[in-house]
Amino acid sequence: MCGIVGFTGAQSAAPLLLDGLKKLEYRGYDSAGIAVMDGQKITVSKVTGRIANLCEKTRDGADVPGSTGIGHTRWATHGAPTEENAHPHLSNDGRFAVVHNGIIENYMQLRDELIRDGYHFESETDTEVIVHLIEMYYRGNMRKALLKTTNRLQGSYALGVICSEEPGKIYAVREASPLILGVGIGENYFASDVTALVNHTRNVIYLEDGEFAELSCETIKIFDCTGQEIRKKVTRILWDVQAAEKGGYEHFMLKEIMEQPGAVKATIAPRIKEGKVVFEELGLTASEIGEIRKIIITACGSAYYAGCAGKYAIEKLCRIPVEVVLASELRYSDPLIDNRTLVIVISQSGETADTIAALKECKAKGARTLAVVNVVGSTVAKLADYTVYTWAGPEIAVATTKGYTTQVTVLYLLAVYFAGQLGRTEGEDRKLLTALQALPRQIQQAFDLNASIPALAKKYHASKSLFFIGRNTDYAIALEGALKMKEISYLHAEAYAAGELKHGTIALIEEHQPVIALCGNPAIMEKTLSNIVEVKSRGAEVLALTFRNNQKIVSVADDLLFIPKIDALFSAVVEIVPLQLLAYYVARENGCDIDKPKNLAKSVTVE
Amino acid sequence: MCGIVGFTGAQSAAPLLLDGLKKLEYRGYDSAGIAVMDGQKITVSKVTGRIANLCEKTRDGADVPGSTGIGHTRWATHGAPTEENAHPHLSNDGRFAVVHNGIIENYMQLRDELIRDGYHFESETDTEVIVHLIEMYYRGNMRKALLKTTNRLQGSYALGVICSEEPGKIYAVREASPLILGVGIGENYFASDVTALVNHTRNVIYLEDGEFAELSCETIKIFDCTGQEIRKKVTRILWDVQAAEKGGYEHFMLKEIMEQPGAVKATIAPRIKEGKVVFEELGLTASEIGEIRKIIITACGSAYYAGCAGKYAIEKLCRIPVEVVLASELRYSDPLIDNRTLVIVISQSGETADTIAALKECKAKGARTLAVVNVVGSTVAKLADYTVYTWAGPEIAVATTKGYTTQVTVLYLLAVYFAGQLGRTEGEDRKLLTALQALPRQIQQAFDLNASIPALAKKYHASKSLFFIGRNTDYAIALEGALKMKEISYLHAEAYAAGELKHGTIALIEEHQPVIALCGNPAIMEKTLSNIVEVKSRGAEVLALTFRNNQKIVSVADDLLFIPKIDALFSAVVEIVPLQLLAYYVARENGCDIDKPKNLAKSVTVE
Repeated sequence: MCGIVGFTGAQSAAPLLLDGLKKLEYRGYDSAGIAVMDGQKITVSKVTGRIANLCEKTRDGADVPGSTGIGHTRWATHGAPTEENAHPHLSNDGRFAVVHNGIIENYMQLRDELIRDGYHFESETDTEVIVHLIEMYYRGNMRKALLKTTNRLQGSYALGVICSEEPGKIYAVREASPLILGVGIGENYFASDVTALVNHTRNVIYLEDGEFAELSCETIKIFDCTGQEIRKKVTRILWDVQAAEKGGYEHFMLKEIMEQPGAVKATIAPRIKEGKVVFEELGLTASEIGEIRKIIITACGSAYYAGCAGKYAIEKLCRIPVEVVLASELRYSDPLIDNRTLVIVISQSGETADTIAALKECKAKGARTLAVVNVVGSTVAKLADYTVYTWAGPEIAVATTKGYTTQVTVLYLLAVYFAGQLGRTEGEDRKLLTALQALPRQIQQAFDLNASIPALAKKYHASKSLFFIGRNTDYAIALEGALKMKEISYLHAEAYAAGELKHGTIALIEEHQPVIALCGNPAIMEKTLSNIVEVKSRGAEVLALTFRNNQKIVSVADDLLFIPKIDALFSAVVEIVPLQLLAYYVARENGCDIDKPKNLAKSVTVE
Repeated sequence: MCGIVGFTGAQSAAPLLLDGLKKLEYRGYDSAGIAVMDGQKITVSKVTGRIANLCEKTRDGADVPGSTGIGHTRWATHGAPTEENAHPHLSNDGRFAVVHNGIIENYMQLRDELIRDGYHFESETDTEVIVHLIEMYYRGNMRKALLKTTNRLQGSYALGVICSEEPGKIYAVREASPLILGVGIGENYFASDVTALVNHTRNVIYLEDGEFAELSCETIKIFDCTGQEIRKKVTRILWDVQAAEKGGYEHFMLKEIMEQPGAVKATIAPRIKEGKVVFEELGLTASEIGEIRKIIITACGSAYYAGCAGKYAIEKLCRIPVEVVLASELRYSDPLIDNRTLVIVISQSGETADTIAALKECKAKGARTLAVVNVVGSTVAKLADYTVYTWAGPEIAVATTKGYTTQVTVLYLLAVYFAGQLGRTEGEDRKLLTALQALPRQIQQAFDLNASIPALAKKYHASKSLFFIGRNTDYAIALEGALKMKEISYLHAEAYAAGELKHGTIALIEEHQPVIALCGNPAIMEKTLSNIVEVKSRGAEVLALTFRNNQKIVSVADDLLFIPKIDALFSAVVEIVPLQLLAYYVARENGCDIDKPKNLAKSVTVE
């Protein structure tokens, strides 16, 4: 995945492009580049690494003259993160420049064909075939050249294109990757995400798959996939961009961890009215809920683990079987789905390519689809039959924290809501609502109980590998805890169902091997205690996470993380908090780039 | 889990006990000990480590006089593998000795109580409470003392007991751990497993949960849990123990890998008759199969991954949804099961405690249960409604190979059989049978294609960690491949769905990180190729497993493992073979104890 921007207007383009790219850096930061047109000449400047390097190289854009241009920040997929592979890519004749977010699946064939036709390649990217195709097809009409080019491409792409023979014009093409047009006064923009636009305009147009646009400083023309001009609605963005600042914390991740009581409260509060969970936005009737025979939750990364945590609450309260499936796997598994299957897709950004593909597959098979997303107007939100927003606010750190907890919170709310509609919680409603409403306060207590985490991080940060173990709900939380550790501290952390460790993986336990044991669920704590004793008798150092005054665990563990005593049904939202903090402080101890871990991007818009 | 033996007769007991323990060493080898009675005195000898140490210490038993005794080989659960914690445990007055396989869950309370009553503890084990309870309750009648003692115990236990006031007698108690009595002439035995008995007698009695026995050289008295004497059937063992020898290979594991063509053939051949898959032993009618709405496969370790591989074939051919659940998790998850759910439990030994518990839970909820096991007459085989044997023959290496492949083979056979009974494979039967019957030959081809594995092991053996990636069926195989590597080479190997890696774990990919990429399934190979390119562009060293002449993969991978081109539906049985060999040679390169990896035991008879 990558981020792209484009500008045309009266001002100098380069500083505006650089500013936009900085906002998109969360989408990738392997390399960056801009291409700007001044009259008829295209000037390209590219660097490896962060946007800051590009600002330095171009003297904040001053060295790249012109008022029409495109820019790119890269997350490497095809080809190493080198300067040659950085975008924009130029055509052999130097008349065209292209930036691209996505993957061209048939690029090998196209590359072979173009080489036979005499085109010369400068990079190892899949993208470069696009600019050569445009050069090949251009006969003085960019609309036709783009149509012919996109007809040859398989895969996903948001493209930005400039041509030295079309001064003042930028072209934007969308197919299965996000792209938004910004409507200014005497100037126009495009970008992968509204955050890159809102400093300049709050009026945007969402391109759909197959559409493309020609932007000049005064006009925006939009075409469908046949080349017919079409009219599109302008949407006003109401987002508060200020909310995405760090607010005094050293990293966005820590800020977002600390925002969780508020984010979870914002997720719960509007859904509780008159002693009941309500989902006015949902539009599923009680009889429609009654028809559901199976729920499939599909997602990627932390959102997938949010599904794993939610499964317990939904199955327990609703007695509907829930299967949690990785989105990248679901798509190619020919899933057994019918119109009595409810598919819940979870994605913070709503632009996760694997999740979008899984959603489309399930819709095609006739399932009802419900999206749990954070970004309003995102592709997932638009595609699903029903959408529930998580109201976490903007999340900038690449490793999700409040995104995850609000997703789990929505699943808990849906569990209580569905169960209520099915008449399965008679007399329990009040108890369940009290437990839900206590969550924000309990997260705050989890902060207060774990002042020792920075010291624990000093003890554990140099471990070669880490095991997280737990049973049942504790296991689901262990999965997310281990992923958090992997993502930002680069330690090989792996979560295991506590009872499964002895069926093979216990071979890896040796003297001083750290094992993080989750014991937040009283119903199965004694069983996990047996597994703690097993690993301790092989020399493991056990860091146990449990509630205060749990003497049995306290007496065997080497170190402790604490949570307040909570209802196991809804525990993930609270129990994950000490593990987020542990991952954060271990990464900090190791000097890692916490908000922008290597190799990762915030929303993964390729498969 | 542990192994226990007992002997009473006219011969010297110690050599016989040591011989039996050697046969049981696959159940654990942390420490070992024997207790032998000569007239009225009990002599105990214990060591840490292998039985060989105990033979040395006792001069092959010559130093421990007497013709009545018990012995134990330990796999540590409670307390480190020290000499103090080794069994047998003696009572404070020295009159009683106990060996125990299992876990006493309430040992902490019992220990506190016994300490208050003045008993002194020598070890950290859960077992030691038993011998003190027996001392406390013994008033000249062992039957009563054992009844009173077992009434106090919660958990699982196979016990062997001797008492210096009961010369010539050994006592055996069974509750949720395996125990078999051996009926000799002028001598009698007990043991955890028949392998420890067959050198001496082939006439055995299977004890059931709650039963206990008093053996003298001439008599065997068996009692139920109320103390009433009962009569039990004597069973004749027809096993060929010679088959369990190494047969020229350096390790049992390699021998068992090489036996797979024969084992898979032995599993398939009796089930194909007149161009159809038949399961005469199964006894499920076509209309009963038609009633199945959901299949749950539950197991532990490699058997669980066999289930993951089998799921694809069953869902694809039968269109019945299959959920694969860890046995240790299923038990406490309050699973949604009814009488239209078929639960398939898989266990090589048929004695896996977690699997037995899950099976009982599913039966209690009204499911039909089908066991896939290797050991005839094992607990799982006896408990399930239907049993299908894998016919792999004895498997001695702790890390399963032919056990796994024959389990997967049975699932494939069941998939074809069920689909045929459901009328869903009209016209395809012949093609499916041909594919199944080709598997033994294709395993042989997988051996022939991978002569380079010992050299690859030299390249990869020192890796800190390893990632195995694949999609769909390749993912299921990656899971087992990674577990094999963990179990015997102690490398931190982890399997990932190839498309999921980028959602977090790719942060761990750095220069020279080995990634083993499975590309055996042509339908999703192009997608996996994209993921290979992703990790390569971050510096990973890619060892790809694919079929010969797959130029696309061959041209990007650093190293290669090969399989013949096979039907993806049934690929796991063949595709796992190069990964078994890789794990074997990496472990050999690292000087690991391949057949008996540290911390592991062959069949895990504790939770």
